[in-house]
Amino acid sequence: MTNKNKSKQLKLSTVAIVVIGNEILSGRTQDKNINFITGRCDKIGLDVQEVRIIPDIEKRIIKTVLELHESFDYVFTTGGIGPTHDDITTESIAKAFNVETEINKIAIQRLKNHYKNMNIELNKAREKMAVIPKGAGLIDNPVSSAPGFITKNIYVLPGVPKILQAMFLELEDKICGVTNMKNKNIVVYSAEGEIADILIKVQEEFNEVSIGSYPYFRPPNIGTNIVLRSIKDNLIGLAAIAIKKKLVENKIEFDET
Amino acid sequence: MTNKNKSKQLKLSTVAIVVIGNEILSGRTQDKNINFITGRCDKIGLDVQEVRIIPDIEKRIIKTVLELHESFDYVFTTGGIGPTHDDITTESIAKAFNVETEINKIAIQRLKNHYKNMNIELNKAREKMAVIPKGAGLIDNPVSSAPGFITKNIYVLPGVPKILQAMFLELEDKICGVTNMKNKNIVVYSAEGEIADILIKVQEEFNEVSIGSYPYFRPPNIGTNIVLRSIKDNLIGLAAIAIKKKLVENKIEFDET
Repeated sequence: MTNKNKSKQLKLSTVAIVVIGNEILSGRTQDKNINFITGRCDKIGLDVQEVRIIPDIEKRIIKTVLELHESFDYVFTTGGIGPTHDDITTESIAKAFNVETEINKIAIQRLKNHYKNMNIELNKAREKMAVIPKGAGLIDNPVSSAPGFITKNIYVLPGVPKILQAMFLELEDKICGVTNMKNKNIVVYSAEGEIADILIKVQEEFNEVSIGSYPYFRPPNIGTNIVLRSIKDNLIGLAAIAIKKKLVENKIEFDET
Repeated sequence: MTNKNKSKQLKLSTVAIVVIGNEILSGRTQDKNINFITGRCDKIGLDVQEVRIIPDIEKRIIKTVLELHESFDYVFTTGGIGPTHDDITTESIAKAFNVETEINKIAIQRLKNHYKNMNIELNKAREKMAVIPKGAGLIDNPVSSAPGFITKNIYVLPGVPKILQAMFLELEDKICGVTNMKNKNIVVYSAEGEIADILIKVQEEFNEVSIGSYPYFRPPNIGTNIVLRSIKDNLIGLAAIAIKKKLVENKIEFDET
C-alpha cells in the first residue's frame, strides 16, 4: 500500500449539517440538534466540517443543499418535514434535484397504523408527511412514525429534538465512519496567554494532531482547556507528553481529564 | 413617498453570523453565542438570515466571510481572536480583503493598562490580541480589554460567551435597526396536524405576517406553538384574531402567551 492510499483510508468522511427553521434564526428557540449530531458524528467517526442555519425559504434551502451536496460526503438536514404550511423542506429538496414527490406507500402505511393505534384521524395535513421524493430511501422514525428520507447524500431529519435523536441513533449503524477521532483534554489553570508559546512549538512538532486552545472565564477562575484530536491515538499521547513536560518546566499547573 | 420607498424603509437590515471554532463542530462545546446574538438582533430590529459554523481553517474563513459580506448587511463573527496558535480569525479576515494587519496603538495601550492592573505580564502571545487590520474600527471589550474590530461590514467578536455578550451589548447602540420585529405566540394543546389547515388559510390572508408552527413533544403532552411575526403590529393582531376564531370554531383549546 502506498502512503497516499494509507492516508486516504484514514481520512474521515466529511459532514455538513443544515438546520432549517425561522425559530432558531429569531432566537426564539435554542437549537439542540447541532450539538447532538456533531457529538454523535465525533463518536462514530465522521468529521463535521460545516453547519448552516437557514430560514424556511425554498430558494435558500435549494441553494444551500446543492452547495453542500457537492462539497461534503454527508449532508444532514433538520426541520421542516411536519404537516404544516411552513414545512417545505421535502418539496424544496425534491426541486433541488429535479425529482418529483409522491405519497410513499410504506410511509403512508406506517402513518395509518400509527394514527389508528393512537385513535387519531389521519387527515390531509398529516398525509403530507408521507410525501417523499421518488426513489428516496426512508429513515425510520421509532417515535412518531413519520419517516425521514435519503436523496443522493442528503439525509432529511425532523426538527423536534427527541424525535431527531431517536432517528439519528437508528441511522448510525448504516453511516458510521471507518475509524474514530480520538480526544485528549488537558486543563491548565492559567490563561491562554501563558501557554501560547508552548502550544505553537508542540503543534509544529505534531502536525497530524489538531491542538485546540479554549479559554474559560468564570471569575475569579480563569484557565484554558487544551484539546488534542487525531485519528492516531499514539500521536495524541506523544503530543500530550510534550505539552505536559513544557508545562512542568514552566511551573504551570494542570490536570488531565 | 412612493410605495417602493415605503417598503424599503420598513425592511429590516439583514445579518449573517459566523461561528469559527473546531470545538463546536466536534460537539465538545455547546455554542451559546448564536442564541444570544439572534435574540438580541430580534430585539433591536435586525433580521438574522443565516448562521454558519466553520472550522479554524484560513481558506474556509476567507471563503465564508467573502460570501456573506456580499449577501448581507451585517456579518458578525465569533471566535478565533485570542492569543494562541489556533486563533487565526484576524489574519484570515485581513487576507480576505487584502488588508495588512498592524499592532493597533489604542488596542496595545488598553492591553498594557489591563495587564498592568492585573499584575500579569503582557507577553508576545498576548500582544497578538492588539494586532488588527489596518484601518479597522475597534469594538470595546469592557471585560478583558482585548478589542474586537470592524472591517467593511464584518464585526469580529470573541468566542467566550461572557465577553462576547458584554461587547455585543456595548455595540448595539451603533447598529440598531430602524424598526423592531414584533411577535405574538399562541399555544395550542393539539398536534400540528390538527391545525395545519387553519394556518394555511390565515397565512394566505396575511402575507405580511410570518406564521410559524412549532410542535412540542413532551409525552404525554403534545401541542403546537404558533408564532406570528411582522414589523406591523396591527397585522399580527388581526392574524391572531383570525386564527383564534377558527380554533374556537373547531373546538381546539389554546392559550395566548
